Amino acid sequence: MRIAAVIAAGTGLTIAYAPGATSYNGLNLTPQMGWNTWNAFQCNVNETLLLNTAKSLVSLGLKELGYDYLILDDCWSTGRNDSGYLVEDTVKFPNGMKSLISQVHSYGLKFGIYSSAGLYTCGRYPGSLGYEQKDADLWASWGVDYLKYDNCYNQGQSGTPKLSFDRYNVMSKALNATGRPILYSMCNWGQDNPFDWAYTIANSYRMSGDIYDSFSRPDPRCPCDEAIGCSFAGYHCSVLKILNMMASIGQRTQSGSFNDMDMLEVGNAGMTDSEYVTHFSMWAFMSSPLLIGTNLLSLSPGNLAILSNPAVIALNQDPSAGAAVRKWRYPVADTDEYGIGEIALWTRTMDNGDSVVALVNAGNASRSMNATAKDLFIDQGTSGTYTVAAELSEEFDIYDLWANRMGEAEAGQILNGTAEVVAMNSTTRYNSTRVSYADGLKANATALFGKKIGRLSAGGTLTATVDRRSLGLFRLRKVEGNKLRKRDEL
Amino acid sequence: MRIAAVIAAGTGLTIAYAPGATSYNGLNLTPQMGWNTWNAFQCNVNETLLLNTAKSLVSLGLKELGYDYLILDDCWSTGRNDSGYLVEDTVKFPNGMKSLISQVHSYGLKFGIYSSAGLYTCGRYPGSLGYEQKDADLWASWGVDYLKYDNCYNQGQSGTPKLSFDRYNVMSKALNATGRPILYSMCNWGQDNPFDWAYTIANSYRMSGDIYDSFSRPDPRCPCDEAIGCSFAGYHCSVLKILNMMASIGQRTQSGSFNDMDMLEVGNAGMTDSEYVTHFSMWAFMSSPLLIGTNLLSLSPGNLAILSNPAVIALNQDPSAGAAVRKWRYPVADTDEYGIGEIALWTRTMDNGDSVVALVNAGNASRSMNATAKDLFIDQGTSGTYTVAAELSEEFDIYDLWANRMGEAEAGQILNGTAEVVAMNSTTRYNSTRVSYADGLKANATALFGKKIGRLSAGGTLTATVDRRSLGLFRLRKVEGNKLRKRDEL
Amino acid sequence: MRIAAVIAAGTGLTIAYAPGATSYNGLNLTPQMGWNTWNAFQCNVNETLLLNTAKSLVSLGLKELGYDYLILDDCWSTGRNDSGYLVEDTVKFPNGMKSLISQVHSYGLKFGIYSSAGLYTCGRYPGSLGYEQKDADLWASWGVDYLKYDNCYNQGQSGTPKLSFDRYNVMSKALNATGRPILYSMCNWGQDNPFDWAYTIANSYRMSGDIYDSFSRPDPRCPCDEAIGCSFAGYHCSVLKILNMMASIGQRTQSGSFNDMDMLEVGNAGMTDSEYVTHFSMWAFMSSPLLIGTNLLSLSPGNLAILSNPAVIALNQDPSAGAAVRKWRYPVADTDEYGIGEIALWTRTMDNGDSVVALVNAGNASRSMNATAKDLFIDQGTSGTYTVAAELSEEFDIYDLWANRMGEAEAGQILNGTAEVVAMNSTTRYNSTRVSYADGLKANATALFGKKIGRLSAGGTLTATVDRRSLGLFRLRKVEGNKLRKRDEL
Amino acid sequence: MRIAAVIAAGTGLTIAYAPGATSYNGLNLTPQMGWNTWNAFQCNVNETLLLNTAKSLVSLGLKELGYDYLILDDCWSTGRNDSGYLVEDTVKFPNGMKSLISQVHSYGLKFGIYSSAGLYTCGRYPGSLGYEQKDADLWASWGVDYLKYDNCYNQGQSGTPKLSFDRYNVMSKALNATGRPILYSMCNWGQDNPFDWAYTIANSYRMSGDIYDSFSRPDPRCPCDEAIGCSFAGYHCSVLKILNMMASIGQRTQSGSFNDMDMLEVGNAGMTDSEYVTHFSMWAFMSSPLLIGTNLLSLSPGNLAILSNPAVIALNQDPSAGAAVRKWRYPVADTDEYGIGEIALWTRTMDNGDSVVALVNAGNASRSMNATAKDLFIDQGTSGTYTVAAELSEEFDIYDLWANRMGEAEAGQILNGTAEVVAMNSTTRYNSTRVSYADGLKANATALFGKKIGRLSAGGTLTATVDRRSLGLFRLRKVEGNKLRKRDEL
Repeated sequence: MRIAAVIAAGTGLTIAYAPGATSYNGLNLTPQMGWNTWNAFQCNVNETLLLNTAKSLVSLGLKELGYDYLILDDCWSTGRNDSGYLVEDTVKFPNGMKSLISQVHSYGLKFGIYSSAGLYTCGRYPGSLGYEQKDADLWASWGVDYLKYDNCYNQGQSGTPKLSFDRYNVMSKALNATGRPILYSMCNWGQDNPFDWAYTIANSYRMSGDIYDSFSRPDPRCPCDEAIGCSFAGYHCSVLKILNMMASIGQRTQSGSFNDMDMLEVGNAGMTDSEYVTHFSMWAFMSSPLLIGTNLLSLSPGNLAILSNPAVIALNQDPSAGAAVRKWRYPVADTDEYGIGEIALWTRTMDNGDSVVALVNAGNASRSMNATAKDLFIDQGTSGTYTVAAELSEEFDIYDLWANRMGEAEAGQILNGTAEVVAMNSTTRYNSTRVSYADGLKANATALFGKKIGRLSAGGTLTATVDRRSLGLFRLRKVEGNKLRKRDEL
Repeated sequence: MRIAAVIAAGTGLTIAYAPGATSYNGLNLTPQMGWNTWNAFQCNVNETLLLNTAKSLVSLGLKELGYDYLILDDCWSTGRNDSGYLVEDTVKFPNGMKSLISQVHSYGLKFGIYSSAGLYTCGRYPGSLGYEQKDADLWASWGVDYLKYDNCYNQGQSGTPKLSFDRYNVMSKALNATGRPILYSMCNWGQDNPFDWAYTIANSYRMSGDIYDSFSRPDPRCPCDEAIGCSFAGYHCSVLKILNMMASIGQRTQSGSFNDMDMLEVGNAGMTDSEYVTHFSMWAFMSSPLLIGTNLLSLSPGNLAILSNPAVIALNQDPSAGAAVRKWRYPVADTDEYGIGEIALWTRTMDNGDSVVALVNAGNASRSMNATAKDLFIDQGTSGTYTVAAELSEEFDIYDLWANRMGEAEAGQILNGTAEVVAMNSTTRYNSTRVSYADGLKANATALFGKKIGRLSAGGTLTATVDRRSLGLFRLRKVEGNKLRKRDEL
Repeated sequence: MRIAAVIAAGTGLTIAYAPGATSYNGLNLTPQMGWNTWNAFQCNVNETLLLNTAKSLVSLGLKELGYDYLILDDCWSTGRNDSGYLVEDTVKFPNGMKSLISQVHSYGLKFGIYSSAGLYTCGRYPGSLGYEQKDADLWASWGVDYLKYDNCYNQGQSGTPKLSFDRYNVMSKALNATGRPILYSMCNWGQDNPFDWAYTIANSYRMSGDIYDSFSRPDPRCPCDEAIGCSFAGYHCSVLKILNMMASIGQRTQSGSFNDMDMLEVGNAGMTDSEYVTHFSMWAFMSSPLLIGTNLLSLSPGNLAILSNPAVIALNQDPSAGAAVRKWRYPVADTDEYGIGEIALWTRTMDNGDSVVALVNAGNASRSMNATAKDLFIDQGTSGTYTVAAELSEEFDIYDLWANRMGEAEAGQILNGTAEVVAMNSTTRYNSTRVSYADGLKANATALFGKKIGRLSAGGTLTATVDRRSLGLFRLRKVEGNKLRKRDEL
Repeated sequence: MRIAAVIAAGTGLTIAYAPGATSYNGLNLTPQMGWNTWNAFQCNVNETLLLNTAKSLVSLGLKELGYDYLILDDCWSTGRNDSGYLVEDTVKFPNGMKSLISQVHSYGLKFGIYSSAGLYTCGRYPGSLGYEQKDADLWASWGVDYLKYDNCYNQGQSGTPKLSFDRYNVMSKALNATGRPILYSMCNWGQDNPFDWAYTIANSYRMSGDIYDSFSRPDPRCPCDEAIGCSFAGYHCSVLKILNMMASIGQRTQSGSFNDMDMLEVGNAGMTDSEYVTHFSMWAFMSSPLLIGTNLLSLSPGNLAILSNPAVIALNQDPSAGAAVRKWRYPVADTDEYGIGEIALWTRTMDNGDSVVALVNAGNASRSMNATAKDLFIDQGTSGTYTVAAELSEEFDIYDLWANRMGEAEAGQILNGTAEVVAMNSTTRYNSTRVSYADGLKANATALFGKKIGRLSAGGTLTATVDRRSLGLFRLRKVEGNKLRKRDEL
């Protein structure tokens, strides 16, 4: 049974909505955004780094864009005390974790911490298996708002969905029992198909092995081609590989519980600008958590501009909370040094009825790409096909969501502190703490819709030239008719 | 061990029959038929829709053809009361469920309801996991005759046949404990190989991800190519994909417990007429439940004619309760836009000894197709081969099961109420409430056998021209000899 | 760890033997031989059939060749009595089972019965799940010597080796508890890898779906290409498919517990003579149980000759109790109508040091086939390679194991009762009740070694012309040296 | 989450180390080395063989090179006594095991023993399942230092990581409970993905089926191409197959718990000298245990030279305790008789910052092979890519680790006792009992670094001519800069 589809196209009946909470704990109705220590710093973490980063999140306007979780990953403790409680590393955190978190809160940010559902964390620090309630209580007492919960050293407690569910559920219940709202980010690497069961116990769940800073290079250490049934997910998974693994499971994405494609690599120098644009766009489009994973203190203007594009973030924070669908994927002859070359079309219907289209060119040459109306609207009709889709007889204005990308000069000003960021609402910038994305989308806020570049005739074909290893990302807005028409598709 | 094969061909001994009930609860000796809300209406359900549909099932002669279950799918409740009992949505059902069901019964129809073996239904309404007996008791008290039991939000209770069996068995026992005969339709999407274990606890079991209204388009959201071992079945599975998934598991089909290929899409506009003919024919031929999934109030004459073909329904309701076997399948060069193109031969032996043949042309061009006697009768000999099959030395009359399809004019009269349907027994129409299919088949009722179009010589080859994306469906009747010879093949 | 390999080649040390029983219950040190009702009669069984067959087993000399189990398969009961004991069908067995078994015993034969580790047998008769001890006790009281224990209706108790092991182990213990020696033949179709665990609880275990009477035709109802990890084995598996599935698991074959390739189809008319010769040869060579599955009352001389070849049966009953190894397998261009065409080399070392070679031509044309010394002796050296194999510097006489096949005339005499079978020891016939195969092999009994046809020079290449869909089966005997040298290879 | 990566490249922060023990029981911080009876002697074991071998390990300088475990594999007991304790075979061990072990200890060697986590050992001697504590206590009382624990006859206790973990954990705890340090070598053939869970309970774990003495020959008895998810590993796995299975799981290798690629075949005559060089090099490079598996009493000079290369052993005993990574693998046209032909690049960063490179030519012809700086340093940059790897702008001296291989004459002198081995530190020999590998590496001991053969320019390409079925093995040392820079990569 397709989950919670409540389409009423053409039936003439009023639409019914699913009752009850759409999040098991009320949190994360749209994907979490923030910053995490791991990708750039691994175990080299300390109070100074975190406070400097907190400052940067504010000064660069990232907090206002929605990046409001500051997450401390592995390597923060030194063991357990005689009472069984974890003890923070006082060399790294000389003022203690409670004080640090309090300061982070004072920046208007929320604080995330890390552990593993195993004997140790991945870095061999103490894990939480068997200590779930003690650890949750401690974190709550510190003011922790978020837990990333890893899968290392899990004592073989896996192999069926039930074994993994039961293990992760212990911490879910422990967090709930603290009474403090704590976002629960499950990191079991897609083992035992979490997209089939995690939504009743967690706010997000990793669905693959660890990302690395490469657009397409295959690595044997990321051995599975499919998320389904992968019992050893590994790491060094490329952007393209993780993206394609989402094609068959993204359908399970829902408000309150998201497929997590792993943290962003934007800024870490392993990809070109257009590859980072593609990476960021597709993570946003798929409703993956958007967790910056680079050193903000040395961020380049170009990468700030990528991370700050409000029209792309608006896809991620859309109330529809869905994932894009891969409509087609074809190999191309212009492959890269690893033999990889492909193109794909991904689409998604947004809460306000707009359609968004990504034409991904993962070939090695620039090319003209086409998407027919049939390709675009295959899911819009009765029973999931295009035949009777109303969209086939409608015209759409085409908006390019990267056309208003912030320029180098403007980004540079923000980075060197000469631009005012708090109030920045413009075509290039957005302050979601003043007007939420949901409200901004309803109000057709300029910054959230890119730039109009043309029109798609009824039943016509969308055509765009897309650079090598890049994408075209377009928002289609109906020319006439009720823009407020609600479409609940997931 | 081949299940319950009791062939005695050539042995000269009397045939023994398997003892005891062939259905675990005595129900569903042939596949259920009826109408379900989901494919056309999803969550947009209410009393008016159901009562109008009930009326239509009668007025269109569909009830008389055997479509006698009216099934309300997801989205009918608003939660549980303080006693833990489900509460119907009184906006949708202002007179209450009990009253509604009583009215449905008054039309001579049976009533089906829906829940999930999980925390929630797929639409996030309350699920029955942990409430099985309470829910079964309530439904029985309302007069419910049928339960579709879904698999959403199952708390990870899957991964081995035992985990799925045990979960679904709780409801099976609960339904039995009510004392009311309630058909139990398991919908766990083929997870954990239900074709290997469901027959002792359920009357039918879904064997794939959800169907969608497409004949052949592959969709990554329906990721498994085989039913066996598929741990994430998904949705947007095409007719052709589901059909081919049956080839290796249809053998487990048996009286009282059927592989469910999902509800029909006939009438929903995503396929051509010949594609719907193929879809309907093969669902009937495979002994899948036949559950109409379209809006009866806007049904076209052509689609009514498809759903009403008595000679095809007779395959589905044959006392043999078996599934057709795919004898061969070949790729063809004339592929469609998705690269799909194939032809296949499916056959099945009926209770009265007739053989039925489907030549499926899923290529993009019309073609002449052949089936040799050897292809046709491979299963008829001792030990499962054709070599000593008696059929090789027999002649057969060939009946085209679509030749007597009801015309547009006649169907139009039924739809506009100018035709008398209650008594309609003719070459195009059948009233199974007067003469059951079993009795009609024994009596060689004209409507159940199509139109004679030729003869197959002994050991000869059946040849037919089959349109693109269509099928030839033929019933072979022995020219001489005892038509009443019983063949128990499954 | 390679199981129980005790090769001492070239070490100069005395060879150690594995201690303790090599069979968990002391039975079946070489594979069981006999006759089973299913393949030819399915459910059409009765006292007359069984007694006539018992008589034939004796009169045709089959008992003397070792076929001494008469096995009644499914469909023999009518239910359970008030005490929970199974009740035989008194229509089929008017004198009761105890009396029947007693008569069978009086022919010098042993009697086998059938049940399923499930709610029902495959034919929906009562199964033994939950009644194991009661059923075992009853069978023991009747004098039953053998149980074939099927896998139908197993209530989902599968999915890990542990789930299957535990279920089958209940009956294993129940049989042992009776105190009567009862051969335990597990029939769980290879589910959950029984070749990895069955040897401590059973005397043989099916490793595939059901055989059917076809040499090579693929059928989607036999869906797995490998025995390993197959969760739905199905039926209609061809001889060639089952044979190739053995290549990776035959290594687990051992005295007391054999991979069961399913019952023989010889005589059922679905294959040519040379295909049956190949089928029978390879079943014998792989140490599969040899259970005749045809109607002995209508057996042809040619098929009797196949089943009676003592030189081939001697491979099966060799004290080494091993399985042949597939040294190579290549596709050939001359494929059959199903696209199948391949050749393969299988070899095995026998207890007396001889090597046996099968050159299987599953192509559609006759061909010359070669096996180099290296191919032949790859397993003979230290650490499993050929490099230091003593055999490379030795000469071998080549014996063709089918050269002395009994002629049509001789077989006809046996069938019409004009030949004396009790005492028949000759080149074509053997009486293993007088001289066991083990003793006959030690004594170089003529009938067990075929006919010398040439010599293989040291390090040379064995060449043979092999007909289409046939095999060459040769026994290589060292020209000089100690023929009694013991080789324990398994 | 990538386990325990603590790279700080380019961050300017101090590097944090993982706390706590890196071995669950404090043992085996680098892979075990020694000699095992099985590959050469199988069950033909006795006191004389073991004592002679102990003597040889000392006299050939192997003990000083680090081969200090003498391991008695299967077939040493005769059963259990009335108290349930195992009894050694007094024919094979006339002075008892305790006395034997004491003598082995007197040579400065440690003693290993064997059992199985099953009812029997693979050779059908008594297994330890259910007797874990009794057996561990007995072995401890004898002075045993090492247990190889096999997987035969495991009563079906497998199928999920949890089932295997729990079974093997019983022995882990039993060994710990003895109070004696006993290295625990798990041999469950990679079943249920031990690389995902064994490190908290064992010091090494087999990850494949049994090796055999062949470089590349595929054998159906080693059926899995991947270690992940392999439920039946088998045996007769070639060197090349096992090596490639490591590519996706070697990442889990860590100090205290190693992927075990099975015992060495060097010396057993099934491979050429260059194949043995490749086998030995890659086992060392992957941090597999190095367990000699040949008869030391008949060792050839060439094979002694392979086993004695200190520059290669130093890779194995490097404090980094990591595994090499396969950077690329390509098929080549010059295949061998089995159709196998490929080339690959493997690299690894050592504890002192050096990079080691293996260019494996598994093709049938000699060839020039290249590795670009990008290939070499893909893992050195931030987030795992090469882009910002410092190494790209550095020069490296290239050392050939086989250039100083001991000559035939020198090896001959050692074998005939005319060379002094105890004090042998030279370019060809090393005494690790005087200066550990860790200390020797820190001190740049000549014998551990091969011979300088050239220089790699910054960002340049390493080129080497590599013979057919051989490898080039090079250590890259930075020309300028701090050689002591610590790199913790795993």
